[in-house]
Amino acid sequence: MPIYTLFPLVAVTGAAGFLIGALAQQDISYRKLNDEMVRDPYVFRSRRKIFRALSFLGITASPTVQLTERGQSITSESSFEESETESSEIISSPDTGSVSLFEQFILWSRSQVNHIMFMTFSIGAEQPHYKEISHVASIMKYGFPGMDEIRVYKNFVLSYDRRNRIAHWVCEHIRGECLAYRDPQTLEKPNEYIADQSIPSMFCPNMRDFRNTEWVGGHMASPQNYKCNVTMFNEAYKFPNIVPISRALKNNVWLRLEHYVRELALKSGSVYVYTGPMFMPQRITFRNWAIRHHVMGMNTVAVPTHFFKVIISEHRQQGVLPFVEGYVVPNAEVDSETDLRSFLADVRDIEHFAGLKFYDGEQRKRLDFTSSDSSWDIEYIN
Amino acid sequence: MPIYTLFPLVAVTGAAGFLIGALAQQDISYRKLNDEMVRDPYVFRSRRKIFRALSFLGITASPTVQLTERGQSITSESSFEESETESSEIISSPDTGSVSLFEQFILWSRSQVNHIMFMTFSIGAEQPHYKEISHVASIMKYGFPGMDEIRVYKNFVLSYDRRNRIAHWVCEHIRGECLAYRDPQTLEKPNEYIADQSIPSMFCPNMRDFRNTEWVGGHMASPQNYKCNVTMFNEAYKFPNIVPISRALKNNVWLRLEHYVRELALKSGSVYVYTGPMFMPQRITFRNWAIRHHVMGMNTVAVPTHFFKVIISEHRQQGVLPFVEGYVVPNAEVDSETDLRSFLADVRDIEHFAGLKFYDGEQRKRLDFTSSDSSWDIEYIN
Repeated sequence: MPIYTLFPLVAVTGAAGFLIGALAQQDISYRKLNDEMVRDPYVFRSRRKIFRALSFLGITASPTVQLTERGQSITSESSFEESETESSEIISSPDTGSVSLFEQFILWSRSQVNHIMFMTFSIGAEQPHYKEISHVASIMKYGFPGMDEIRVYKNFVLSYDRRNRIAHWVCEHIRGECLAYRDPQTLEKPNEYIADQSIPSMFCPNMRDFRNTEWVGGHMASPQNYKCNVTMFNEAYKFPNIVPISRALKNNVWLRLEHYVRELALKSGSVYVYTGPMFMPQRITFRNWAIRHHVMGMNTVAVPTHFFKVIISEHRQQGVLPFVEGYVVPNAEVDSETDLRSFLADVRDIEHFAGLKFYDGEQRKRLDFTSSDSSWDIEYIN
Repeated sequence: MPIYTLFPLVAVTGAAGFLIGALAQQDISYRKLNDEMVRDPYVFRSRRKIFRALSFLGITASPTVQLTERGQSITSESSFEESETESSEIISSPDTGSVSLFEQFILWSRSQVNHIMFMTFSIGAEQPHYKEISHVASIMKYGFPGMDEIRVYKNFVLSYDRRNRIAHWVCEHIRGECLAYRDPQTLEKPNEYIADQSIPSMFCPNMRDFRNTEWVGGHMASPQNYKCNVTMFNEAYKFPNIVPISRALKNNVWLRLEHYVRELALKSGSVYVYTGPMFMPQRITFRNWAIRHHVMGMNTVAVPTHFFKVIISEHRQQGVLPFVEGYVVPNAEVDSETDLRSFLADVRDIEHFAGLKFYDGEQRKRLDFTSSDSSWDIEYIN
């Protein structure tokens, strides 16, 4: 064979090997990171940045963005702000950024050429856990209100407040389908709340803290929303989901509010609910305000003064903005005749006192904040 | 050229290209991730997991660890617990895991073969920002007590509490060298505290909140520790580092405590200090406890009831365990004659009431908790 065909051949083989090697390395990294993302919500949160860093041979789709980012000074605060807004973007599932170039090719080839599907099927068989990633993404579609101690459960995601031994917020996605059917196993509820091993016992309440107090354990994510599945039902009895609540409130207004959420879910099919405690200040003298809340038991579990619920109900109809409502209920006995509408609150006030941020930035424009009465044609149990 | 030499040649070139391609892709990813790590403390926190996922062609050094991890169920809570302890390991700087295979080769070749150093110098010139990564690592040597809203500054790292508009904790590394010299520019201090743009203004206090109140702004990380550098000095005047403090406390006991820390730093050369607010319950009736704290101004800035300082002073001598002390001071006027020793507190009590965890796990064994009087041969100003 003459030398002038040998050189190009070797060069092409080398270059092809180089590209395939880079592709393989990227693909392996992507798969492993996708595995990691399922386990660690903080990796999940930073996934856009990480996947941008893993771009094929450093080539990013939009090099201008990359440049301005690189131009920023190191440990500059503005970059942290960017990470803030990033976490609250609408999360599309599965993430477009989480697919390596090799997988993009596989996906493309599957859709384009049917006859090579058989060949690629065996290669692309071990797909990353899209289901589980999209699990977090589907619950947190409207963003994380805060990033302290995130815990992921089957039916809800929560942020835990170690100082107060209760959650900062619990976010759940309630689907109409689950409410229509009841698993007979869920007729029997657990006798005690279940400890979560992932939280150090020194920051976790126990049953003894609730004894001899004015408060009972209330659920942030209601087990009644998950009667279709006994595992999901029992998870709502885990301690991080429990909060000290006045018995009179729990059995009346709180129950009605939870029932209202379920009615909304049955009507619209898909409702996202953020529930959490609030600590509201009281006026002592002129210009002198203070927060006072009780603590229970040896673990000094904080008793919130109020609770909030932020409800985002999507429309079955495409193109109609999701509808947002905020409720604030005092953690005390409330007249059982009170109309739920009198507890409606501005979401910005909830944000102010809870120190949280709901679907901020661009997100806000995509939601309907008008306090129209469109959702109020549901009958209440009184 | 005969065909039987051509095939091996092409195969070897292809394989070499494959390996070089994988190496290049890994190296680029590592560099970009190292850049990202400097900007985002959450990426920094998860760096071990991410770098393990980026291992060369998926081959990890210790496959057994990988296996047990993989064996865990998805979204299992135990894996989150593991991530907890991971963050509090002693952070060696620069991180051994943060170096790609290619860089390992460069580093190895530099140390081994001096005569190829000139060749590799130009390739390895653009090193990742070890300095800045080791900046976070050097301050946070004894771990993150909590992971809520981490902010990185030149001389300290803090975790911000958006609900209370003050920091959860501030961690600083005080070196003896900086205390010995004073930059003349630091004689003039800023007139006002500086807002931090990275925190949404709705969660940030301003000067107006401090007007007409009983409290003044106090520094968690004292600017007096950074008189050697005007940039670091001014950063201590940023709002997240400011907390409402009783004027009488600030000018007396708190000042003495800060001075004691500086004396320790001059003596031992390297002192790590965690400072933060505490909200302590008071007894109302038998078995009935409550937390009550004031809030200031329109932004409802929380006034802590107490402050803590956890001081870890290292020994100049190798092999001697670092010495740990905890102090709790009430946010009120204290008799100026009080001995600082009467404010000594158990670190576990600080952890309980602040909801934080200091250097837990294995870490704890490497520290000296005995309340010996060895560090008390320093003279105090009274």
